[in-house]
Amino acid sequence: MNYAMIRYILAWVLKVEGAILSLPCIIALMYQEKEGISYLIWMVVCLAIGFLGSVKKPKNTEIYQKDGFAAVAMSWGVMSLFGAIPFVMTKEIPSLIDALFEIVSGFTTTGASILTDVEALSHTSLFWRSFSHWIGGMGVLVFILMLIPVKNGSQMNLMRAESPGPSVSKFVPRVRNTAILLYKIYIVMTIVQIVLLLLTGMQWFDAMCISFGSAGTGGFGVLNASCAAYTPVQQWIITVFMILFGVNFTFYYLILCKKAGAAFGMEEVRAYFVVIAVAIGIITWNIGSMYSSFSEAFRNASFQVGSIITTTGFSTTDFNLWPELSKYVLVLLMFIGACAGSTGGGIKVSRMLLLVKTIRKELQSIAHPRSIKKIKMDGHPVEHEVMRSINVFFITYMVIFAVSVLIISFNEFSLETNFTAVAATLNNIGPGMDLVGPMSNYAAYGVVSKAVLIFDMIAGRLELFPVLILFCPSTWKKRG
Amino acid sequence: MNYAMIRYILAWVLKVEGAILSLPCIIALMYQEKEGISYLIWMVVCLAIGFLGSVKKPKNTEIYQKDGFAAVAMSWGVMSLFGAIPFVMTKEIPSLIDALFEIVSGFTTTGASILTDVEALSHTSLFWRSFSHWIGGMGVLVFILMLIPVKNGSQMNLMRAESPGPSVSKFVPRVRNTAILLYKIYIVMTIVQIVLLLLTGMQWFDAMCISFGSAGTGGFGVLNASCAAYTPVQQWIITVFMILFGVNFTFYYLILCKKAGAAFGMEEVRAYFVVIAVAIGIITWNIGSMYSSFSEAFRNASFQVGSIITTTGFSTTDFNLWPELSKYVLVLLMFIGACAGSTGGGIKVSRMLLLVKTIRKELQSIAHPRSIKKIKMDGHPVEHEVMRSINVFFITYMVIFAVSVLIISFNEFSLETNFTAVAATLNNIGPGMDLVGPMSNYAAYGVVSKAVLIFDMIAGRLELFPVLILFCPSTWKKRG
Repeated sequence: MNYAMIRYILAWVLKVEGAILSLPCIIALMYQEKEGISYLIWMVVCLAIGFLGSVKKPKNTEIYQKDGFAAVAMSWGVMSLFGAIPFVMTKEIPSLIDALFEIVSGFTTTGASILTDVEALSHTSLFWRSFSHWIGGMGVLVFILMLIPVKNGSQMNLMRAESPGPSVSKFVPRVRNTAILLYKIYIVMTIVQIVLLLLTGMQWFDAMCISFGSAGTGGFGVLNASCAAYTPVQQWIITVFMILFGVNFTFYYLILCKKAGAAFGMEEVRAYFVVIAVAIGIITWNIGSMYSSFSEAFRNASFQVGSIITTTGFSTTDFNLWPELSKYVLVLLMFIGACAGSTGGGIKVSRMLLLVKTIRKELQSIAHPRSIKKIKMDGHPVEHEVMRSINVFFITYMVIFAVSVLIISFNEFSLETNFTAVAATLNNIGPGMDLVGPMSNYAAYGVVSKAVLIFDMIAGRLELFPVLILFCPSTWKKRG
Repeated sequence: MNYAMIRYILAWVLKVEGAILSLPCIIALMYQEKEGISYLIWMVVCLAIGFLGSVKKPKNTEIYQKDGFAAVAMSWGVMSLFGAIPFVMTKEIPSLIDALFEIVSGFTTTGASILTDVEALSHTSLFWRSFSHWIGGMGVLVFILMLIPVKNGSQMNLMRAESPGPSVSKFVPRVRNTAILLYKIYIVMTIVQIVLLLLTGMQWFDAMCISFGSAGTGGFGVLNASCAAYTPVQQWIITVFMILFGVNFTFYYLILCKKAGAAFGMEEVRAYFVVIAVAIGIITWNIGSMYSSFSEAFRNASFQVGSIITTTGFSTTDFNLWPELSKYVLVLLMFIGACAGSTGGGIKVSRMLLLVKTIRKELQSIAHPRSIKKIKMDGHPVEHEVMRSINVFFITYMVIFAVSVLIISFNEFSLETNFTAVAATLNNIGPGMDLVGPMSNYAAYGVVSKAVLIFDMIAGRLELFPVLILFCPSTWKKRG
């Protein structure tokens, strides 16, 4: 392990976090909230540690794959630990494990909360919660890659660990330029959503926080009723943007390059929209009698489908009260997740597509044992290595899932609660069903269970292996 | 497809089924039950069709893998359809779909029932239900392989499709001799169990039926209370035999060859016993306060763990009332299942072992990208092809699982009910939780849901692909 480089990266993470903490300080000034003082003090602490840690530049800036994975996992750990402290300092979330749960839920864009009364929080802390979604959605390391020197080739080892999806494609030859382009698309889309929501008459604070949530596909709202209090038009705008942020960003890059044909030909994006349409159809039909009009049922169904498949987690209605069929459709969407290369979580549509193609190919190869066909995606054969890594991902995912449910079962909540709690955290969604439904929260779980769910959120966001690698003794050997 | 050979095999299936139907006829004679007449008539019908269909021997007895898979799936279909009719004829289960559900549950050794009052059945039909477990456990095709001529090499294509586990090992060079040896071990162990139960004073009818169930790892009992009415000693005997029938039969073969070292060194068997011990430990601790003594809690925990991991499905207590942790441990055991090469169902311990080894290897290969290590099992490297087929199995399993739950969700039962109903049928266990718990049954599901669960039982028993291959159009092409 290149310890010097890891130290340097972690110091940069703190510098960036310190810089970001200035934003809640500004909010505190505007609303004249005393909580701002805690944020200000903590900002200085982060910056100080960050600057001290990054004074000495490492000579060797090379990062192996293993180091890249470990660096990303540790960055998320450090970022979360330091990000949780302001909640404790302001005494708004006095327990450290609860504060950690809340900020990990923020950075990983999960949106699961341990708070029973969100509206009791200061604007400062509400902003910090929501902004953590926006930062976590695109990734901090991807941001830092724009700022620090890393040996060429090593950059991909960092980016690969933080970016969602089975394979990372560089739009442009240099990783740094790809990162800049991604952030540009991200910022522009967020601003457009804020402006649209403002035009409908939404308060600017809500518009901003909700847009951060949609963009990062995290589900922290600023009202106890999540998005139920907003007007139908506002809900539709949020629906559309949640779904747009769940699209593979390659799609937007292709559009920008005026390759609309290639963009709309992307199999993953097509499958994503087909799944959304089918799910909305089933649920609208299924919940029709619960709402006064078709349009209301359709709106709630669309909002919830968009919210769950993109793993955002906002809600306009208590879907825990929906019929079992609709609830199960939502549970399925939790696992499918958004597109790879988006800000969303879950297993990802492209992985699901490749899994289905694997089954089809297996049946063909039983029928024609001698034919050797490769699985194709967007017309290109998929490399054996990619298929293998998807299989391993899937298996590891299931094992982590099963073990997590086992551990939190010690709290003796219902199977549905535990099952969907893990589904909602490992897939970075937020609300589950039953006791962790959209109108409830995670406060009732014990400390061990909360720790497991925190692990699941980070493991889910980083797609398992960067976190698991921390548990391998060989990771910690000094490089010879 | 070699249609002539398929016709010949199916005819043999009917001949064998006709022959087996003579047994319930004997029971009917002994108990002087009029239901025997229906069984007698139907026996003649099966034998007649069977003999007519097998008069003309096919010239080409070669069976490709595809044909083998399709032949096995169709055999199970024919066997089930013809096996269901006696229930309808005696009017004990007047609905055809219910009768089909019951006998498929029998042959696949599931033990899920649509009957609300088992004790209302005639001895004749009770025997037929329980005996179907015994037949289905080892497999009908494996039996028929001993009787009919199949081109050398082609036999494996039949056996592979019907035998549980990721790879079929022939004990002895000739497939037929392996089949005979398997049946010998099976028969001897069943007889030993019957004798032991008789020695405890159990009625001979119960002893026989319960032993058929344990041997085949199916869960049809002859009393409404399943095994709760038996004495502690009887329950312990059943527990031990359920667990023994869940062991890979290679273990017994090695013991017979006086290779005890190799037998006890089998990683799968060791893992199987470790999982059983841990599960019993957790559950005994967890349910302790519910029972009057430690030994009672320990006995119930052991019985239920043995019953579920081997996918038998007997019960001595309503485990649906157990605490959530114990229930979840049982749900986990449902998926793990018994050893490969046993009569039990589920994903199988060896597959689970290999999945865990896959994860370990992936982490090693991230840490040391250049090392090329193969996964080993019992000291031997596992072939790439085996690993690939396990991955595909796992993926296919999950997809079938998710889709099945989706379809039966239309009945609007709880998520726990639907989830465990599919788990209990696809893994050939029998009872699930909540509305399909050990003291309930599957009668409430609609026709479509029952059809899905029937599909799941057969797909689970034949390990998915033989059944799926029937849906590929290319399977039905006449061989050129």
